Amino acid sequence: MDKEASGFNTKQTVAIVGLGLIGGSYARGLRRLGVDHIIAVDPDEKALQQAKQEGMVDDIYTAGTEALKQADLVIFCTAADVMIRFLAENKAFFTPGTILTDVAGIKGDTATAIAALLPEGVDFVPGHPMAGREGRGYAMASADIFNGANYILVPMEGNDEEHILAVKNMARALGCSHVVRVTPEDHDRFIAYTSSLPHVLATALVNSESMNTLTKYFVAGSFRDGTRVADINAPLWTKLFLSNKDNLLYEIDRFSAALQSFSTMLAEEDTKGMTRFLQQAAMRRRELVHETHSR
Amino acid sequence: MDKEASGFNTKQTVAIVGLGLIGGSYARGLRRLGVDHIIAVDPDEKALQQAKQEGMVDDIYTAGTEALKQADLVIFCTAADVMIRFLAENKAFFTPGTILTDVAGIKGDTATAIAALLPEGVDFVPGHPMAGREGRGYAMASADIFNGANYILVPMEGNDEEHILAVKNMARALGCSHVVRVTPEDHDRFIAYTSSLPHVLATALVNSESMNTLTKYFVAGSFRDGTRVADINAPLWTKLFLSNKDNLLYEIDRFSAALQSFSTMLAEEDTKGMTRFLQQAAMRRRELVHETHSR
Repeated sequence: MDKEASGFNTKQTVAIVGLGLIGGSYARGLRRLGVDHIIAVDPDEKALQQAKQEGMVDDIYTAGTEALKQADLVIFCTAADVMIRFLAENKAFFTPGTILTDVAGIKGDTATAIAALLPEGVDFVPGHPMAGREGRGYAMASADIFNGANYILVPMEGNDEEHILAVKNMARALGCSHVVRVTPEDHDRFIAYTSSLPHVLATALVNSESMNTLTKYFVAGSFRDGTRVADINAPLWTKLFLSNKDNLLYEIDRFSAALQSFSTMLAEEDTKGMTRFLQQAAMRRRELVHETHSR
Repeated sequence: MDKEASGFNTKQTVAIVGLGLIGGSYARGLRRLGVDHIIAVDPDEKALQQAKQEGMVDDIYTAGTEALKQADLVIFCTAADVMIRFLAENKAFFTPGTILTDVAGIKGDTATAIAALLPEGVDFVPGHPMAGREGRGYAMASADIFNGANYILVPMEGNDEEHILAVKNMARALGCSHVVRVTPEDHDRFIAYTSSLPHVLATALVNSESMNTLTKYFVAGSFRDGTRVADINAPLWTKLFLSNKDNLLYEIDRFSAALQSFSTMLAEEDTKGMTRFLQQAAMRRRELVHETHSR
């Protein structure tokens, strides 16, 4: 737990806006690190009370508050639109020198729009942990979600290097094994492959013409896993896909090329080629799991 | 628990060959139903002793045995090749009137080959539950794996209707919600879509040229779910895919058509079409989960 924790200043005030699963996990993680003063803001009074009783946070507020002026670091653990609204309504409470960061995967134009809302001297460093767990709400929060997780930083032009470092040090102190810094462009490229594409494949799998009323009797684990994320928020993801159109189209093409190469080998009964293809997949999957410490 | 259990005769001797996760689950389920006499055969003496001590089975043997002559029903809970070897080596112990069934998904030519091994009057009714759970071995066995699961019967020509009914009644008595009877041809068609295809998609996803050493930092739940089965037994699945080549090629084509239709809408920024596509996927996935009582 001490790795690079030395670089993280525990003698500071951290405000967490949004005390759900992720926000609560920050509170628990930061308290475990010994952070002096933690402020939580959330409309859910029950969550606030529970966190305070458990000693995970010190001061609790159900809405934007003057107390935010004390914060050295503010972590937004809300959806992007909630964060933007909160910033617009409470900008008077952010004072020069405060570092803001988020967990929403905000980047590019959106990040620039947010930065424009901020008072002079308040720096917003976009980022997000690649972490999470089943369930929702403060009750499910755990400091352990950061253990061995990756943390992605997507700094904006104009971000103070010291502020970027402060967020990075926090992530490492919380237990994240890698903090990756990428440009908004690279972020979008990677996410198209590792997040958007799997969602598209899952939806295409259930949307195959082969799906019929008998399918359900033959469904086993592989189909269930492969379609888990097909239960999708359609309007939201349509927007997300369109916002990253070119990268996603590119990834669909690359995936289709891999699928086609397998299909050709199968048609030609190329046993060796198929075995090699599957062996490569198995190896890559195993390495991935090994490296990400997940199943 | 009493639904159609009346159709299942508990006053009989059931032999379970292979007392692992699935075999053990049959033992537990059948004992719970009150089956009179359960014989278990497995090379793993520890598993046998544990099952006997728990009262789940009555007589235990580490190899083929004369005792099998007592069996009214024999359930093979082993891999197909183990079952075939066992049958060839122990056919003297199977007496006329005995019903054999399996869990290996044997069908078509393989089933016919197995039937040819059997003494006159011994009927082999191929079938398998669409059930399972994480882990392996008797210690992980549970009667609950059958609860609400589907059971697939793939009868052969020549199977006695009463024997098919006996296996069906057992499945229902164990708690399976649906027993589906299909021809070997239909079985292969369905399995190509619900099992082979998801495995191929998972392997193609990790085999995309986009996979690189940075991918791991951006992997989240959807990618993990979508590639779970990519860690595949390559020689085994190559054989499986080749044995069902035409159906699998057809399913890859149908999947590709669905993917292509989405890709075209994305390229054309057809927001309505995309939303409809995703909504349909979400609805189908939700219905599937609802109907299969799984996540």
